[in-house]
Amino acid sequence: MIKVGIVGGTGYTGVELLRLLAQHPEAEVAVITSRSEAGIRVADMYPNLRGHYDQLAFSIPDVASLGACDVVFFATPHGVAHALAGELLDAGTRVIDLSADFRLVDAVEWAQWYGQPHGAPDLLGEAVYGLPEVNREAIRGARLIAVPGCYPTATQLGLIPLLEAGLADTRQLIANCASGVSGAGRGAKVGSLLCESSESMMAYAVKGHRHLPEISQGLRRAAGEPVGLTFVPHLAPMIRGIHATLYAQVSDRSVDLQALFERRYAGEPFVDVMPAGSHPETRSVRGANVCRIAVHRPQGGDLVVVLSVIDNLVKGASGQALQNMNIMLGLNENMGLAHAAMLP
Amino acid sequence: MIKVGIVGGTGYTGVELLRLLAQHPEAEVAVITSRSEAGIRVADMYPNLRGHYDQLAFSIPDVASLGACDVVFFATPHGVAHALAGELLDAGTRVIDLSADFRLVDAVEWAQWYGQPHGAPDLLGEAVYGLPEVNREAIRGARLIAVPGCYPTATQLGLIPLLEAGLADTRQLIANCASGVSGAGRGAKVGSLLCESSESMMAYAVKGHRHLPEISQGLRRAAGEPVGLTFVPHLAPMIRGIHATLYAQVSDRSVDLQALFERRYAGEPFVDVMPAGSHPETRSVRGANVCRIAVHRPQGGDLVVVLSVIDNLVKGASGQALQNMNIMLGLNENMGLAHAAMLP
Amino acid sequence: MIKVGIVGGTGYTGVELLRLLAQHPEAEVAVITSRSEAGIRVADMYPNLRGHYDQLAFSIPDVASLGACDVVFFATPHGVAHALAGELLDAGTRVIDLSADFRLVDAVEWAQWYGQPHGAPDLLGEAVYGLPEVNREAIRGARLIAVPGCYPTATQLGLIPLLEAGLADTRQLIANCASGVSGAGRGAKVGSLLCESSESMMAYAVKGHRHLPEISQGLRRAAGEPVGLTFVPHLAPMIRGIHATLYAQVSDRSVDLQALFERRYAGEPFVDVMPAGSHPETRSVRGANVCRIAVHRPQGGDLVVVLSVIDNLVKGASGQALQNMNIMLGLNENMGLAHAAMLP
Amino acid sequence: MIKVGIVGGTGYTGVELLRLLAQHPEAEVAVITSRSEAGIRVADMYPNLRGHYDQLAFSIPDVASLGACDVVFFATPHGVAHALAGELLDAGTRVIDLSADFRLVDAVEWAQWYGQPHGAPDLLGEAVYGLPEVNREAIRGARLIAVPGCYPTATQLGLIPLLEAGLADTRQLIANCASGVSGAGRGAKVGSLLCESSESMMAYAVKGHRHLPEISQGLRRAAGEPVGLTFVPHLAPMIRGIHATLYAQVSDRSVDLQALFERRYAGEPFVDVMPAGSHPETRSVRGANVCRIAVHRPQGGDLVVVLSVIDNLVKGASGQALQNMNIMLGLNENMGLAHAAMLP
Repeated sequence: MIKVGIVGGTGYTGVELLRLLAQHPEAEVAVITSRSEAGIRVADMYPNLRGHYDQLAFSIPDVASLGACDVVFFATPHGVAHALAGELLDAGTRVIDLSADFRLVDAVEWAQWYGQPHGAPDLLGEAVYGLPEVNREAIRGARLIAVPGCYPTATQLGLIPLLEAGLADTRQLIANCASGVSGAGRGAKVGSLLCESSESMMAYAVKGHRHLPEISQGLRRAAGEPVGLTFVPHLAPMIRGIHATLYAQVSDRSVDLQALFERRYAGEPFVDVMPAGSHPETRSVRGANVCRIAVHRPQGGDLVVVLSVIDNLVKGASGQALQNMNIMLGLNENMGLAHAAMLP
Repeated sequence: MIKVGIVGGTGYTGVELLRLLAQHPEAEVAVITSRSEAGIRVADMYPNLRGHYDQLAFSIPDVASLGACDVVFFATPHGVAHALAGELLDAGTRVIDLSADFRLVDAVEWAQWYGQPHGAPDLLGEAVYGLPEVNREAIRGARLIAVPGCYPTATQLGLIPLLEAGLADTRQLIANCASGVSGAGRGAKVGSLLCESSESMMAYAVKGHRHLPEISQGLRRAAGEPVGLTFVPHLAPMIRGIHATLYAQVSDRSVDLQALFERRYAGEPFVDVMPAGSHPETRSVRGANVCRIAVHRPQGGDLVVVLSVIDNLVKGASGQALQNMNIMLGLNENMGLAHAAMLP
Repeated sequence: MIKVGIVGGTGYTGVELLRLLAQHPEAEVAVITSRSEAGIRVADMYPNLRGHYDQLAFSIPDVASLGACDVVFFATPHGVAHALAGELLDAGTRVIDLSADFRLVDAVEWAQWYGQPHGAPDLLGEAVYGLPEVNREAIRGARLIAVPGCYPTATQLGLIPLLEAGLADTRQLIANCASGVSGAGRGAKVGSLLCESSESMMAYAVKGHRHLPEISQGLRRAAGEPVGLTFVPHLAPMIRGIHATLYAQVSDRSVDLQALFERRYAGEPFVDVMPAGSHPETRSVRGANVCRIAVHRPQGGDLVVVLSVIDNLVKGASGQALQNMNIMLGLNENMGLAHAAMLP
Repeated sequence: MIKVGIVGGTGYTGVELLRLLAQHPEAEVAVITSRSEAGIRVADMYPNLRGHYDQLAFSIPDVASLGACDVVFFATPHGVAHALAGELLDAGTRVIDLSADFRLVDAVEWAQWYGQPHGAPDLLGEAVYGLPEVNREAIRGARLIAVPGCYPTATQLGLIPLLEAGLADTRQLIANCASGVSGAGRGAKVGSLLCESSESMMAYAVKGHRHLPEISQGLRRAAGEPVGLTFVPHLAPMIRGIHATLYAQVSDRSVDLQALFERRYAGEPFVDVMPAGSHPETRSVRGANVCRIAVHRPQGGDLVVVLSVIDNLVKGASGQALQNMNIMLGLNENMGLAHAAMLP
């Protein structure tokens, strides 16, 4: 059995990791840490886990016990993995970071967006961006994975077929995205209260969201040139789900976009190119490690619209983290991730 | 007292008209019709109206009793107002149509989008498009009003300041909109069930939605030239609200967009240009006849993002219909419409 | 115009008072206080109020300016009105307290449930329990009103017809109630997050909720003897609404309960006894100062089931507070409160 | 592999069966029938199943192909299993009926509640009521299972420990229950629309719900004597979940109820007696085949309150159906059912 450690497991990506790992036949959670909840059993905090982790309790983070794990996941705010990842790697432990700490290749850019210096610039060279549909080979050999953010996963998977094929005008890409409230985490913020966020829609961070440089970096990689991206996130009145509506100018109207997307993702276990004309619903991926995509060219014009949906806590976080673990360790990529989404 | 008739009052725009008219000091509902519910009291169908319309019952549509009203509202599917409006106008009754019957100036275009011939092309000449912020003077003298659709109201109010000023590239406008489920009406459709539409987001009708020609027509009027518009509607998991996220290329970066919008809507009782940097929430207009707008230029680039929210049943339908009535009849424009939105 | 002060207006009962007062033709808000938000305009905090209170800002609580008001509402946590009410009464200001400070007649019982000594026991003698359907005459002459809690309002209005008539077995009454999340206030608590409280139902405080002694006191008053009450509150996944399902043993099967309830509430402007067989929905009172009630005797047995619904923020708090103000000041009781509920 | 057939698989219990069977290592769906959707692939109707059942399509019900299955599930309205079960049993197929057709032992009582004669009274003798916690041994040898209803499952599991122990006053039991809207099925009914059922609570069928005789029958069996039950179902604004709040008079205050419940369900894989003082949330069982129970004695009085929650589509329908299949076929009882609930 693979010994798994989780740092900062009290948030939504933490409990989702636990839910998914409970079904993983080859992994067991040996350590889960939380400064604030140390001593509390995870099943007392998350009653959905009763019967699954009855002995597991949160402990104070401790390099010795984490370093004894085969893999450690960071489900922490940014900055924490910076401080601990190096020591764990030295102890021979693989690190899969769900935070933003190693997503940007440029430490200076990171510092600009996160308002503090990058805490582990020496590790950037070996950190692998954990989007398997782009980086599977690099993930296989990696010791340190930066799991992509939720918006970046949905957006990149939706746009890269166009960019890799050199079809889109890279100067004016638009990602109009909506997220469920779980994307804001389990912190007690007024804006995340049911009475503030249900029965309402709003855009936020139009000025600039921290996922913008991550998405731009990924699109640039796919396009082979700089891209101009406008990213407008919205808060939708639901728990889970990312819905990305992506706009790209594709002047060549002769291309069969449906075939292009199907070809790009042929054989991908977790990307579903839906039939032409489809409108993917976020509920069709709820709880599952899947990205469903549909591509449209409204009124036959130049502007292509790609619709891309994921569950922000699964393919947008904890599920993708497990997918990375499976790849790194040579397991079947869909181990523990093969279940269907829950609908209704 | 103004005698009001309502044709087809069993749907959501009907009950919303009744709710708003209950607070209107100068109007009283004399007739409300419904073929399917004839004989049923409105308060038995809509218990929120108990104590307000205890004697009012649905009756079979009948030109004599409707023609005895000062104003008749059509809260009907398309096609119904075509058949009845002429006779009512002949009887000296003003007609305010909440359906799509008189929104498009071109009967041929109407027939293409609605799949049937236009039923009253002779009335198109005198139908006035009831967007007061554009057409107030024409509304004042009108006998027949076409109340704008919900998406068209939010979208036009958001974009016309840019278009009237000749600032936007009219070839590539985008309206990415989300609507609450009440926009789909009170019909018993599987897609509108709570179990199908809550906890989920989806785009729909990307190929072409019937509001597209209406929006294009309005934007063309504002721009003074044809426009290229991509309109992507989405279904959001909430009862009420339209959130429009509008994209336009504005190359001249020297313009003070905030001032432009504030100037355009100075004195408008029902358009609220929010402070720079705002993110209007649909709940901030719930139940109220208001459109709140914020204008952004993310990262200082060429692409301007306008956020525009309304309650689809109020400023997007029944409230705007009443606003038109007030203007037509020379009443204070905000009579019966002055209440604040309900939050939370 | 009546000069109104509001202490602690940043919570949901505060914003709801502002919403309702904006429609009140005889009252104007002169002062609104908040220590944490002093200097902030109410419309900046609550955008639904933009256009209604554009100059009104929160100020530090100050007896001089509050004492210059005709009426002061306390929309505060318990304990605050204890400290200030006396001084305001001395200044000739009427006090309407939405908190629990003066609801219990017994200071010792209050101290037991609230875990601190009662801060103004000398005022208990003149505090009037502001349930107009029971205490209208006393309210008329009162200077200090204790506005009933939300659960107590729904429960008392549902049970008192049976108790006043001496029909129910007073030893075993049950109030099984569900509340929307706004009942928990606007505080940033994890349990009130959308991700914690939507898509779920739960009971809470089964051991004993602070509304229990208030309800028991009211039922005892109606019955003229002590009552045995089991009160089980539940959290329902919605913003507003209280649904009370009340159980009482009524052995005399010859009584016409429908007639009894209709007689008891004949002429009451804000209690609606629905037709026999009805199932009132909380949405039928959303935003309105109404309690709708239906009485059932399932399978013709001894156990009577009364269904009673209110909007916890209106008839359960701010609307009832205004109703009290209207009565105290000799205004029409439904001034500012005559609007219909918002449905859908 | 066990060959499974599903009759009437287009509703919510059908799609939930498919979701759960997709994780079952020993079963495969060979046939799924629907008259209205014949020829449609299940993954086209339910996109969450894409990638799981890509070849499976609905077919016209046909005894030959169903009779070739090892087990056939009926996920149909009442009456359908009456017509087909006999033939399938004759063909040697086991039948697990999720409808109400075989739940009541008395055909006359069935006819009264369902308004039509019982269609297969001769099969009543061998039908086994599929509540494993009560009937495990009989299920093991059964050919025909009547899967309990959702309310009956939550209510019986909550009350039988008290009744079997002879502790409760059987004359006055109360089951105050709330269900998510999926309990009303996938039919296009106005009352199940998001705009009608979200943001609201209501009781329904207070006069008498079809689950009443089923619950009474089960409680009678546990008590060994007739019981007096008042059952009040409510509609809660959520997709999934049953919350049962159960009231029983237990005069003997010396009994350790917590210990009683823990003992009764010791070793039960799918009943979780929570620690004393707990308030189970329906979301803690979302998607999982679990019933969580807590027992309270508020204020130390005679009235005991039991809280019992299930997912109506899992332990209240499709999960319990699979649990029955596992038991009938001698498989591990939790095969395909071991996953944790999804929270948030």
